[in-house]
Amino acid sequence: MESLIKYASFFEQEVEKYNFRSEPSNLYDPLRYFMGLGGKRVRPLLTLMASELFGTPKENVSHAALAIEFFHNFSLIHDDIMDEAPLRRGKKTVHEKWNTNGAILSGDVLLVNAYQQLALSQREYLKEVLEIFNQVAVEVCEGQQLDMDFETMELDEVSMEKYIEMIRLKTSVLLGGALKIGAVLAGADKQNAQLIYNFGENLGIAFQIQDDILDLFGDPEKFGKQIGGDIISNKKTFLILNAVGKGKKNEIETILKISDKELKVSSAKSKIQEWGVLDEVKKTKLHYYQMAMSALYEINVNDEMKQDLIALSNQLIDRAF
Amino acid sequence: MESLIKYASFFEQEVEKYNFRSEPSNLYDPLRYFMGLGGKRVRPLLTLMASELFGTPKENVSHAALAIEFFHNFSLIHDDIMDEAPLRRGKKTVHEKWNTNGAILSGDVLLVNAYQQLALSQREYLKEVLEIFNQVAVEVCEGQQLDMDFETMELDEVSMEKYIEMIRLKTSVLLGGALKIGAVLAGADKQNAQLIYNFGENLGIAFQIQDDILDLFGDPEKFGKQIGGDIISNKKTFLILNAVGKGKKNEIETILKISDKELKVSSAKSKIQEWGVLDEVKKTKLHYYQMAMSALYEINVNDEMKQDLIALSNQLIDRAF
Repeated sequence: MESLIKYASFFEQEVEKYNFRSEPSNLYDPLRYFMGLGGKRVRPLLTLMASELFGTPKENVSHAALAIEFFHNFSLIHDDIMDEAPLRRGKKTVHEKWNTNGAILSGDVLLVNAYQQLALSQREYLKEVLEIFNQVAVEVCEGQQLDMDFETMELDEVSMEKYIEMIRLKTSVLLGGALKIGAVLAGADKQNAQLIYNFGENLGIAFQIQDDILDLFGDPEKFGKQIGGDIISNKKTFLILNAVGKGKKNEIETILKISDKELKVSSAKSKIQEWGVLDEVKKTKLHYYQMAMSALYEINVNDEMKQDLIALSNQLIDRAF
Repeated sequence: MESLIKYASFFEQEVEKYNFRSEPSNLYDPLRYFMGLGGKRVRPLLTLMASELFGTPKENVSHAALAIEFFHNFSLIHDDIMDEAPLRRGKKTVHEKWNTNGAILSGDVLLVNAYQQLALSQREYLKEVLEIFNQVAVEVCEGQQLDMDFETMELDEVSMEKYIEMIRLKTSVLLGGALKIGAVLAGADKQNAQLIYNFGENLGIAFQIQDDILDLFGDPEKFGKQIGGDIISNKKTFLILNAVGKGKKNEIETILKISDKELKVSSAKSKIQEWGVLDEVKKTKLHYYQMAMSALYEINVNDEMKQDLIALSNQLIDRAF
């Protein structure tokens, strides 16, 4: 834990040291604002940790960690426009505080800023790092598109496999990529770089499944969001799709039509437990978590070196239960 | 001319050979559509020509030419959203044919596709090429922001210098960058690479000034757009700003308030000639054109090799007079 805080405070300093250009202020003010909203900074920490796992000090890869965080924030700024989200981390989103045009364009330049950071990589690793980053970036866009596509599809048109593929693309590949880039820049061999990618990708899927569970079953105080928000907005979460997969499509549709929010959420909670959906989804989460851990253990470095990554995984995956 | 057609048909084949991924179709269909709309493809041709100028066959840099065209199309897709443009090249814009969210996201992935093409560069040149591209990409975003900022500013708040800086960023640096990337990939030395950049940047400024002139004084049949469109929409063009710089702010404001479109355009035309604005603006255009040509002549290769670039320049700059 102490070690995690060390990484986090190091990265926060790197963010503070970075200066966006001052002009045009309508382009860069939104970025200063948005990067200042904070967040868990999980992805850049993964880059730093992966580098140290393979014996290279975090200072050598801070540019890549920044590239990863810039990319993540670019995707949040644009996703917030598409989702018409008014708030992010409790503050106004960029398109709300400025306007949609400003949010499109500052997102664009933030993505380019990410590539500028990547370009600071050592020449010998640049091509590989760029290829990993590009692949991840394409997949994140594809995941966002699938997520939007799902909104207008029928409940039984979105299989659980399709859903897992969507969260893999939208969220998990970036965790994998953040780790792999840190590893490559630290001179890790191909096999180890692939293993750490697999660790991140599976951890990400476990995390997203947990996020769906917590939305309905989380402790309101710890979760920090409205409980049942996904159900209230009729989102096709992994819980819902699992219930539909169990032949409960009609029952789910009935629940989704309940107009009283509290009743809607409490009905969903009790039915999803009753049908055994919660247990099954927890099992699926555990499956991906174990896949992640087994990839981590296979990595050919001293196991003691892996403690920071294990601590971070536990922090991510054991948030509420 | 024959030679220009050879470059153009080669590049068109490269565009056709490129396959966007098939799924998710809502992400990639807009890109197949938009890239299929054609256009002059000036920027990628510059990359190909710059490479051949320095003795490297165009085939070796076709990936970089594609990167440049992808970037250009990304910026058009996003600009069209911001400008609420219904048409591009006579066809529906992406946000009109699909929707704004689709246009944001397909634009994003097209920018990443550009970087994927760049990443195919030879290892020895990759870092430099990436740095040039990033710099240009940042500046194009800054130029678009300035252009939007100008819309809400007073006539006398936008100096001619600011306007030139805006068109330099929004348009010209990409011409310069397209050429410089071709040159670097062909092993040109630093000085020659900088000269060809300067050629492109100045040519781009001359071209944009000409574009402003043609909007008001072009031959309707050759120009392909509505004559006076800029005036009708009260755009701060270089002609308008030059007139304001000559102390004609009040007169210009009076013209801009005329509600009859034909009268508005004809008043603007006659006054701008009467005040000597047209002559002065033509002189400024010629100044940048000559700067471009003198940079081209300074490049340390046999002048015969420069004929294709000269032909293209003349085609761009002598469109109507």
